[in-house]
Amino acid sequence: MTKAKFIVVEGLEGAGKSTAIAAIKEVLEQQGIEQVVNTREPGGTVLAEKMRALVKEEHQGEVLQDMTELLLMYAARVQLVENIIKPALESGKWVVGDRHDMSSQAYQGGGRQIPLDTMQSLKRVTLGEFKPDLTLYLDLDPRLGLERARGRGELDRIEKNDISFFDRSRERYLELSKADDSVMIIDASQNIEQVAASIKQVLIDWFKVNR
Amino acid sequence: MTKAKFIVVEGLEGAGKSTAIAAIKEVLEQQGIEQVVNTREPGGTVLAEKMRALVKEEHQGEVLQDMTELLLMYAARVQLVENIIKPALESGKWVVGDRHDMSSQAYQGGGRQIPLDTMQSLKRVTLGEFKPDLTLYLDLDPRLGLERARGRGELDRIEKNDISFFDRSRERYLELSKADDSVMIIDASQNIEQVAASIKQVLIDWFKVNR
Repeated sequence: MTKAKFIVVEGLEGAGKSTAIAAIKEVLEQQGIEQVVNTREPGGTVLAEKMRALVKEEHQGEVLQDMTELLLMYAARVQLVENIIKPALESGKWVVGDRHDMSSQAYQGGGRQIPLDTMQSLKRVTLGEFKPDLTLYLDLDPRLGLERARGRGELDRIEKNDISFFDRSRERYLELSKADDSVMIIDASQNIEQVAASIKQVLIDWFKVNR
Repeated sequence: MTKAKFIVVEGLEGAGKSTAIAAIKEVLEQQGIEQVVNTREPGGTVLAEKMRALVKEEHQGEVLQDMTELLLMYAARVQLVENIIKPALESGKWVVGDRHDMSSQAYQGGGRQIPLDTMQSLKRVTLGEFKPDLTLYLDLDPRLGLERARGRGELDRIEKNDISFFDRSRERYLELSKADDSVMIIDASQNIEQVAASIKQVLIDWFKVNR
């Protein structure tokens, strides 16, 4: 039996992450992998969900500083990685994550323009060498993604940002994806069935090499 | 009129920080400084108090990782510094703080033994060059401090640590105090009246040079 792996789905709002996660689950089952732990970030533990709420809610009009948002994202991530993801992998369970560190790099680093050396320092001190085995980045124009997200209902605090925020986030996503062999870029401007088919194909090819 | 200053009281549980803060307030009044903002850490803003609660409370038995505790401390600190302390100083109000960054250096760095370069990285990315104008570190043997703290009632999660945790915290407090000219060490093993008198004397001497 091969070592359990950590697979992450990344992308802007409306990119089709839920569809992607369902497609991954299908391929994992075909491969005989049934013990799968699903995570989402920020969140995924009792304490991390409380931090997620702190980031999403209003606090009597108090300004949430960009740096505070970033620290809360990493605090939630540390709880999830140390208390859920690492123990799952060590016990042989695969983990499929709805977002992980790349989201912070894209949104807080790219979108909010927190300096790159700050982003790298925080990643280093909190995660060390830990990273996903495979990341599927669903790429699309944020205009299309927000249109899809709006169709689903309300927008939260982060989704209310200016379009330039999402353009910068996408740019950072693309830069990081191109620089890292463990990240696959999926064209998420396709319709849902095509995105699911692309993901399955990428994953089946990946399994040929990684199992 | 001189620039408003940020004065911080630091020390282990039971060192007499409340007494010290009252003594500082008295001297400030004698100096004609009446617009004083009092802060406490972690906490001091709506959002920072919520993070303080996350650190102090239990979460259905979930382990609070040392790194998460540290990130929450800095998240709370950023909210307090950016939303309360800096605006107060800029508007000419003096700030008297019950704990600040040195507490993280002592408790999480010394006590929990988080590596020094991690501590320094976090301090740098969150606070930059910002630091108190004067820190009064109330030094005493943690055995005496905990005895005093126990006399006041319940112990919280941090106060329940092993005595060696507090010994390491004190050691880090002393190292940092000796290395920084803006930190004055007060002998907090004295009785309350003596501690108050020492603080007033240090502060009066400081005013001779700094006003």
